[in-house]
Amino acid sequence: MPESTKSAPISGDLSIRAAQACVLDKIAPLGTEDIAIERALGRVLAAPIYANRDLPPYDVSAMDGYAVRAEDVSTAPSTLRMIDDIQAGDMPRKPISAGQCARIMTGAPVPPGADTVVRVEETRVLADGSIEIALPVKAATDIRVRGENIRTGDVALPGDTEISPGALGVLATAKAARIEVYRLPRVAILANGNELEALTAPFDAEKIPDANSYALMAQVQAQGIEPVRLGIARDEPDALAKYLRRGLEFDVLLVSGGTSVGVHDHVRPTLAALGVALHFYRVQMRPGHPVAFGTTGRGIVFCLPGNPVSSMVCFEQFVLPALRALGGHRTLFRRTVTARLTQPARSRPGRVEFVRVTLARSECGDYAATPLGKQSSGDLLAMARADGLLVVPAASRGLAAGESARVQLLETGAFQESAGLGENTDLGENA
Amino acid sequence: MPESTKSAPISGDLSIRAAQACVLDKIAPLGTEDIAIERALGRVLAAPIYANRDLPPYDVSAMDGYAVRAEDVSTAPSTLRMIDDIQAGDMPRKPISAGQCARIMTGAPVPPGADTVVRVEETRVLADGSIEIALPVKAATDIRVRGENIRTGDVALPGDTEISPGALGVLATAKAARIEVYRLPRVAILANGNELEALTAPFDAEKIPDANSYALMAQVQAQGIEPVRLGIARDEPDALAKYLRRGLEFDVLLVSGGTSVGVHDHVRPTLAALGVALHFYRVQMRPGHPVAFGTTGRGIVFCLPGNPVSSMVCFEQFVLPALRALGGHRTLFRRTVTARLTQPARSRPGRVEFVRVTLARSECGDYAATPLGKQSSGDLLAMARADGLLVVPAASRGLAAGESARVQLLETGAFQESAGLGENTDLGENA
Repeated sequence: MPESTKSAPISGDLSIRAAQACVLDKIAPLGTEDIAIERALGRVLAAPIYANRDLPPYDVSAMDGYAVRAEDVSTAPSTLRMIDDIQAGDMPRKPISAGQCARIMTGAPVPPGADTVVRVEETRVLADGSIEIALPVKAATDIRVRGENIRTGDVALPGDTEISPGALGVLATAKAARIEVYRLPRVAILANGNELEALTAPFDAEKIPDANSYALMAQVQAQGIEPVRLGIARDEPDALAKYLRRGLEFDVLLVSGGTSVGVHDHVRPTLAALGVALHFYRVQMRPGHPVAFGTTGRGIVFCLPGNPVSSMVCFEQFVLPALRALGGHRTLFRRTVTARLTQPARSRPGRVEFVRVTLARSECGDYAATPLGKQSSGDLLAMARADGLLVVPAASRGLAAGESARVQLLETGAFQESAGLGENTDLGENA
Repeated sequence: MPESTKSAPISGDLSIRAAQACVLDKIAPLGTEDIAIERALGRVLAAPIYANRDLPPYDVSAMDGYAVRAEDVSTAPSTLRMIDDIQAGDMPRKPISAGQCARIMTGAPVPPGADTVVRVEETRVLADGSIEIALPVKAATDIRVRGENIRTGDVALPGDTEISPGALGVLATAKAARIEVYRLPRVAILANGNELEALTAPFDAEKIPDANSYALMAQVQAQGIEPVRLGIARDEPDALAKYLRRGLEFDVLLVSGGTSVGVHDHVRPTLAALGVALHFYRVQMRPGHPVAFGTTGRGIVFCLPGNPVSSMVCFEQFVLPALRALGGHRTLFRRTVTARLTQPARSRPGRVEFVRVTLARSECGDYAATPLGKQSSGDLLAMARADGLLVVPAASRGLAAGESARVQLLETGAFQESAGLGENTDLGENA
């Protein structure tokens, strides 16, 4: 960790942007590890992958048809004698001479002598078995040329590529059964608060169920990381220190609850006593104002609000990009869409407000965003149903119905009810 | 399976929409299973979850401050004697009488007698330890009322809810350590083709590496399903039948390659011989024209093109919504955004064209889509890098630079480089 971890915490409220920059400035991708291709989806390549052969490895037919010599079919109709029948996987050795052709399947190698392919639809088989070609065909038609997709030694995937399904297919073409990727951060989650009841504890009417450990677990899992839940610490310095010490052994520690400045909040003083340098503890946002970030010599700590919705919104703005940066990703932030509000969104100026919304396509094809419930920070049910977080700028006193704003898409926002292919008329479909 | 599985296949080209409707018409959510909350993210609830307590379970303070009687603080300044100090998790028994107050932390129960909370920022402690309140405070300020988020017996999450991180938090509040969800489909992947070389086979310059098994595996994995790769079948009826019989034991069989109508393509006849009812085998799309769908008494089969890009695009349009429908999801299709082309996108009319694009925010905040590479169906490298698939309508002869179209967001399209919070000026941020 750099020297800057020792700097004094920023006492005032930071803007979200400044807080994100502060976090990202203090982290870098973790080390690398060697993993099997079966586990590679979503990971980030630590080194380039090179092509180990030309693709296609030879000229292949792009269609089912006949491999011919262009000079034989420059005028139409022409009639050729079929001397071979070539499937994908065959290696044709018989050269095509003047007046000859070979039946050829999609993906099959073009035989020696042939320099173009005529599609089966443009041919017919005559009574004597010869092939009549109805239309003239130019050279190099419907042939995929050796190496047209990639050549031996070319970079197939640059370093720092996120392994999408398509990229995973490329790895397979390069026979990369094992690959070097950035390792994922190890993440611990600690809940804090005397009022909390563990999921597996007996029901106690005076307690509040610990939702945060599980919501945070799921947010981490959605990034392909299986976090360790450390449990619930009582808000008492010695007990807390024991738990925090354990949590600081991880790359990332998420502490839920205890971010206030109340006299009984022991999280920040205890972290400081354990050598954590705190860099900020308040951000100009709502929900989620009290959120703290600190570093140790080897890991990072986020103190998230005890309120589940606030905790989740803070995770989205700070923890998510940090986890992605640690894992080597270049794209750190949620995809956003622009949406028009169907109802007003209230906001008090001074902080960016994140409004939980559902999204629908409006009649003109734009997105319509509808705020959910009362937008109270206690309303986890609204968060559960949200497609995204609509961003109300800090200067705003609220947005009117019909005004547009950006929406950060949450997990469930990645899918929608309709195929999104537009109207039938737009598509010119027959069905 | 319904009777309709026995209908004759549609011989002509289907529109994408009709083909999707055909697939979705023939499937329904699979059975249900009981799983642990730790594995529940992304699954779909098979039954509603009810609240088993009021939340909050009692009136709690929304702020750090003092619990007071509104009538004592209706004018300012007022001075009160502190008789208690209440943390979250405490159960205060001492009632607040006239002239008294209790220090109270965020989330702590409001003591008997008190009916409002004054924030610590609006108070000061006098020399004699009493509390001075600077401003008048109305009743019920900064109190979260018992049951304001949910009441015992209310539906916390309706059946068919997709379990987002927020929903998983709600499950925890309801102490639902195990839950009933729709089970995920069991998926098998079979590659087909004499030209294919397995990932683990020795390098053979005359073969083509099997990318499809792995790209499809990753597309299935991205839906939270671990598929079984059956391997590579030679395109010969007996060998094929053996593999296909095995594959048909799964809920979903994906066969890659062998979708052409060439004389040597044995997949469709062999499937028919094994009792599979084929419903269509050509769709008006590019890439991906030859794609077939069939049903047996208990499962479904997709025959996807041997070309990796075509195979992946067909997966997106047909297999993905089918997998989601089988797993109980209501939102079956990829999120789309509208984007403006930075370059022309060529298209031949008659089929919907899917153009692999990267996305960037343009200056005015709209999305700009840039087509990747030559858009040849062999160009898996372009597919590997694509953020989304831009949809060119079937009637179109191509789109010009500057024209808008919808883009289906792929996995890597879920994230972007910037935070999407808008400009500093928009936000009114100080930093």
